[in-house]
Amino acid sequence: MASVETTALEKIEAPAPATGAPKAPPPETKAAASITNNFAVIDVVLRVLLFASALVAVLVMVTSKQTELVQIPFPPFRAPLAAKFNQSPAFIYLVAAFSVAGFYSIITTLLSVYALLKPDCSTKLLSHLVIFDVLLLGIVASATGAAGAVAYIGLKGNSHVGWQKVCDNYDMFCKHIGSSIAISLFGSVVLVLLVLLSIYSLSKKIPK
Amino acid sequence: MASVETTALEKIEAPAPATGAPKAPPPETKAAASITNNFAVIDVVLRVLLFASALVAVLVMVTSKQTELVQIPFPPFRAPLAAKFNQSPAFIYLVAAFSVAGFYSIITTLLSVYALLKPDCSTKLLSHLVIFDVLLLGIVASATGAAGAVAYIGLKGNSHVGWQKVCDNYDMFCKHIGSSIAISLFGSVVLVLLVLLSIYSLSKKIPK
Repeated sequence: MASVETTALEKIEAPAPATGAPKAPPPETKAAASITNNFAVIDVVLRVLLFASALVAVLVMVTSKQTELVQIPFPPFRAPLAAKFNQSPAFIYLVAAFSVAGFYSIITTLLSVYALLKPDCSTKLLSHLVIFDVLLLGIVASATGAAGAVAYIGLKGNSHVGWQKVCDNYDMFCKHIGSSIAISLFGSVVLVLLVLLSIYSLSKKIPK
Repeated sequence: MASVETTALEKIEAPAPATGAPKAPPPETKAAASITNNFAVIDVVLRVLLFASALVAVLVMVTSKQTELVQIPFPPFRAPLAAKFNQSPAFIYLVAAFSVAGFYSIITTLLSVYALLKPDCSTKLLSHLVIFDVLLLGIVASATGAAGAVAYIGLKGNSHVGWQKVCDNYDMFCKHIGSSIAISLFGSVVLVLLVLLSIYSLSKKIPK
C-alpha cells in the first residue's frame, strides 16, 4: 500500500514535462482518471453483488414451500397443509421488490461497465444512476422490514393478540424465509454502499 | 416563472464590468451563490418537515392505547383488555427509528441553517450530512415497512396461519397505528427528497 501511495504522490507532484511530449496528458489528469477508474470498478463489483443477492433472495423465498400433516378437528384428524410464501403479502412484496432490484442491477451493471470504458461521460451517468439507487433503496429496505416483521411473528408469535407461532411446525419453510431475509438485508446494505460510493465519487470531482 | 428564468439568464449572460468596480463579484459567482442559497433554503424546509413528521408519528403511535371489554371463556366472561403499541416489536422499532430521526433532524436543521449563513463551507457539510441521511433512510424505510406489515395483519388477519384480525375490536387503536404509519411514509419520502436534493446540489457544483 505504502509503495502505491508514494507512486501516486510522485505522479501528482512530478513537474509537467516542459516540451517535446505534447501528446501526453498532464499527471494530475492521469491521477484523477485513475481514481475515477477505481470508483467505476468498485461500482461494477457492487452492482454484480446486488444482482447476486437479489437473485438468491428471490430463489430461496420462492422455493420455500413445505407441506406438513397438521391436526384438524374432524376425521381423519390429520391433513396435509402447505405453507407457501405467497400466503403472506409481505413476502410477495419482498419477491417483487428484489425482482425489480435484480433487473435494475443487470441494466445498471451494463451502464456502469460502459462508464468504465468511457470515463468522459461517467459523471453524468453516475449522478443519474444514484437517483434510482436511492429510490430502490427505499423500496428494498421497506420490503426487508416488512418481511422481517412477519417472519418474527411466525417465529415468536404474539401472545397479546393470540397470533400463534408457525415455525415449530414448518421448520424448513422458516429456514428458507429467514435465509431470504438475511440475504435481502445484505442486498440493502450493498445498495447503501452504492449510494455512498456515488456521493463520495461526486464530491471528489468538486474543485476545492 | 418565465420572467424569473429570463432574469437569471440575463444575469448569467451579462458581460462582466470592464473596470471601475473591482469589488463587485462576477455575475457567474453571484448566480451560483444564489442557486446554492436556494438549495440550502429547501434543505432547511425539508429538515423541518422531517422533524415535524417524526414528532407527529411518534406521538400518534405512543398515544394509541385503547382498552376494550373482550370475551373470555370463564366467569365473568367479559374482561377489560388493553391494546398498546409496545405489544408489537415492529411498532417499538418504528417509535425508536423515528425518535432517532427526530433528534437527527433537530441537529441537522441547525447545521443546515449554519450552512445557509456561511455558504463557503456548505459543500463539505452537505457531502457529510448526506451520508447520514442515506443511513437513516434505510432505517426509517425498514421501520415503516415492518410496522405496515404488522398493521396489515391486524387489519385483514391471515387465514392461512390462523392469525385473526384485531381492528374490528380496537378501532381507535388501529386508526392511531394507521395514521402513524402514513405519517412515517411521508417522513421517509421527505428523507428521499433530502438525499436527492443533496445529490443534485453536489452534481451542480462539478465543472462541466
